[in-house]
Amino acid sequence: MSEKLDQLKETLGEVADLRNAAGLLGWDQQTYMPPGGAEARGNQLATLGKLAQIKFISPEVGKLLEDLRSEYAGADPGSDGAALVRVASRDYDKAVRVPPEFVAESAIVTTKAHEAWMEARAKSDFSVFRPHLEKIVELTHKYISFFPPAEHPYDTLLDDYEAGMKTSDVKKIFDGVRPKQVELIKAISKSKAVDDSFLHVKYNQEKLWDFGVQIATKFGFDWSKGRQDKAPHPFCANFSINDVRITTRFEKDNPTATLFSTMHETGHALYELGSNQDFERSPLAGGTSLAVHESQSRMWENLVGRSMAFWEYFYPTFKKTFSNQLDGVSLKKFYNAINKVQPSLIRVNADEATYNMHIMLRLELEIGMVEGKLAVKDLPEVWNTKMVEYLGITPPNDALGVLQDIHWSGGALGYFSTYALGNLISAQLWERINADLPDLDDQIREGKFDALLGWLREKLHVHGRKYDPQDIVQKITGSKIDSAPYVRYLTRKFGEIYGL
Amino acid sequence: MSEKLDQLKETLGEVADLRNAAGLLGWDQQTYMPPGGAEARGNQLATLGKLAQIKFISPEVGKLLEDLRSEYAGADPGSDGAALVRVASRDYDKAVRVPPEFVAESAIVTTKAHEAWMEARAKSDFSVFRPHLEKIVELTHKYISFFPPAEHPYDTLLDDYEAGMKTSDVKKIFDGVRPKQVELIKAISKSKAVDDSFLHVKYNQEKLWDFGVQIATKFGFDWSKGRQDKAPHPFCANFSINDVRITTRFEKDNPTATLFSTMHETGHALYELGSNQDFERSPLAGGTSLAVHESQSRMWENLVGRSMAFWEYFYPTFKKTFSNQLDGVSLKKFYNAINKVQPSLIRVNADEATYNMHIMLRLELEIGMVEGKLAVKDLPEVWNTKMVEYLGITPPNDALGVLQDIHWSGGALGYFSTYALGNLISAQLWERINADLPDLDDQIREGKFDALLGWLREKLHVHGRKYDPQDIVQKITGSKIDSAPYVRYLTRKFGEIYGL
Repeated sequence: MSEKLDQLKETLGEVADLRNAAGLLGWDQQTYMPPGGAEARGNQLATLGKLAQIKFISPEVGKLLEDLRSEYAGADPGSDGAALVRVASRDYDKAVRVPPEFVAESAIVTTKAHEAWMEARAKSDFSVFRPHLEKIVELTHKYISFFPPAEHPYDTLLDDYEAGMKTSDVKKIFDGVRPKQVELIKAISKSKAVDDSFLHVKYNQEKLWDFGVQIATKFGFDWSKGRQDKAPHPFCANFSINDVRITTRFEKDNPTATLFSTMHETGHALYELGSNQDFERSPLAGGTSLAVHESQSRMWENLVGRSMAFWEYFYPTFKKTFSNQLDGVSLKKFYNAINKVQPSLIRVNADEATYNMHIMLRLELEIGMVEGKLAVKDLPEVWNTKMVEYLGITPPNDALGVLQDIHWSGGALGYFSTYALGNLISAQLWERINADLPDLDDQIREGKFDALLGWLREKLHVHGRKYDPQDIVQKITGSKIDSAPYVRYLTRKFGEIYGL
Repeated sequence: MSEKLDQLKETLGEVADLRNAAGLLGWDQQTYMPPGGAEARGNQLATLGKLAQIKFISPEVGKLLEDLRSEYAGADPGSDGAALVRVASRDYDKAVRVPPEFVAESAIVTTKAHEAWMEARAKSDFSVFRPHLEKIVELTHKYISFFPPAEHPYDTLLDDYEAGMKTSDVKKIFDGVRPKQVELIKAISKSKAVDDSFLHVKYNQEKLWDFGVQIATKFGFDWSKGRQDKAPHPFCANFSINDVRITTRFEKDNPTATLFSTMHETGHALYELGSNQDFERSPLAGGTSLAVHESQSRMWENLVGRSMAFWEYFYPTFKKTFSNQLDGVSLKKFYNAINKVQPSLIRVNADEATYNMHIMLRLELEIGMVEGKLAVKDLPEVWNTKMVEYLGITPPNDALGVLQDIHWSGGALGYFSTYALGNLISAQLWERINADLPDLDDQIREGKFDALLGWLREKLHVHGRKYDPQDIVQKITGSKIDSAPYVRYLTRKFGEIYGL
């Protein structure tokens, strides 16, 4: 029995080695690679990706999984062996359904689409991107056709990012949060605007970097198992449970972009670093879904990093470090500024109160395209109409509207909702954590995060991909993904800040 | 005809992708990897190495090469196609001779030997390393047995680093240089010692780094196709003809270690960067042998970087940058100091006049071990005896003697002589370059290196591995590797400095 499992682990270990190697190549591409290396790097990534795929979908792996499913049929489903067989089987079944020619065609289409998108965005001309996106939507329909019919065709896409989630689940969850968030945003827009002018001046980059490192260290980031580097777009990448790296960015006159990027990516990193060490080189390592991953990054960034308790501890040092910029700025004034709500055009710059609206807009458009009810040519108009409806603003051009995100150009439809789901899960977990650790706020006020991290490790991180997203949320909080805690959180927090 | 060549190129391209990916993993290991990543990195490198080997020695590649050898039998041997078939066939024939079990056994033995060597060196206790080296010598004999008998068993080892070179060639070459170098060293030791005390004080690291970058840039290093990072041991690594990276190191109170490391590695990098772009992802890319590679690094480091003309250009800026340290130090005094001759214990710190002696000593010991005439247990004693004979000094312990080099612990016997051969080739090329570019010295005096680099590119770099080392040296200089130019160079240079 264990012999076949060992064989499977050995082969999947090599697949993991190839993917982790590719991960390092990608990390290097974003951090240190000289421009001359780009073409060769493309070839290297293509070869590693191809070999990993060939090795993974080999008939041997299929046979091993088949045998192991029989062997583990009666085993405790919570055992690591049973979980490995289940998760690897699901990955395998998905992978073998997609013909290699389709993968190759997709790679070509999305490479061209990515270039066209960059050009279109630079020129703010949707027509440049349109034929490519039409092709991608066509491929997306084809991709869906490789899988058994689901309740909704969009389910197939969603399942790649959130195993087991259905479109109807997401719609229902979002329906619960949308009207309340719209209402909150309207109420805030009628309140007195918050002054954050002192956050739009120059801050020394090196000192910001050091401050970010200090925060990540306090959070529990283990620098012997990771590092931080500079990159144009912040991300977290891992090549082992014990080698997890984050990046941060510097934006002109925007110190909080650097600080909150570091906290966000540290949240992702802590999740990866917390996986059970037995899962190394196996499909069980890492986060169980994008939404649950995002719940961790957003928790450390927002529920911790944008809380009053957090800054009660950090603000005195921060103010001393940037005494010129923060001269006369009280803790309360600073806290309000980093939580300023302002409907804006760009998703990645959105505040907590408006962020989800950007996501819901995208989800509706994606579902429309997948259902065939929304033509690509009509996207810009529908986008702009919805922006007025949800956020009360009209994009002046498509670069600041429908062309702002990279995702569709890479063929990634079905991805966006995970961002909003992550926000919801973060608040849902937070209520449970605070029930279990009633003095958490006091601990944060003293710069102590070990009980919080310990709780997350034990309840969530250590399990890696062993449980599906809805199952682990249920296991921890007693219910599936629920929007109520997030609505409560937003209402209380912003009600206080804006005196609603 | 071209269809099979294209097939071969495609497969070898994938082999190159895997090896280049492994190269990046190795680079990262030495530069940025956090300690926690070490174990996973070992697995990743093992998997990439295994897959590259399997792909390369596949029967398909063997058949393609066989067919292509027939097809190219009458082709111009100087054509790229014929060269590719020849070089790939030789690599293939070597690779298939070595059984995978032997490769696996070697990996295990050398991993343990490397650990033992580190412990032995730290304790200065040869007995810790001895059984491991005995095993390595045993494996070396086994390795040699996989190949057809050569004129000398050591030829098989040498051929891995210097294709086509024989032990008798190297012995003959070294016999030409040894007595003259011994004589020179004796003469120098009777002369007035050079003062280099100002090179053994603290120099600002950042300024040294910047100065090194300035020199590399002047040499013609293209920063859009490479970069420099910090590492404990300087090295050059490349993952494409257009992504070639160097590292440098900082040593306490030793500014020249940093500067000359940068120049040395820049020399290696310029060779790699100069390969014909058509050779990308093929076995023809890169340097033709270790010795020829070393000729490039040593040329830029020594013939250029330790010349009077070079410092006539750079010293005024250098002195201004480090005005405290170099107060009252004239150009002549500085030049003498960076060329100070002093028999020393450690090879990597040896000056130009004594360096080759360290190599000859090692070569004799290696040959002794391969011939079975020198037992591993007798190594320390023989080492110390030869140190007295060649350099007039006795190592106070084995850490500063027989245990100083990493090479044997990795199973690399046959490697050392390439360092000395590189020195000889550098001087041999230098005489030819100066005949072709009579005003080279004046150009260097003005900080101009483009004619020199252009010459090297055209005559040597562009050919990559297309010609074997002895053939390319012959092609460029009109004779095979010859020690006379190096002896002339040393005699003139040090005769002048020491007034001999």
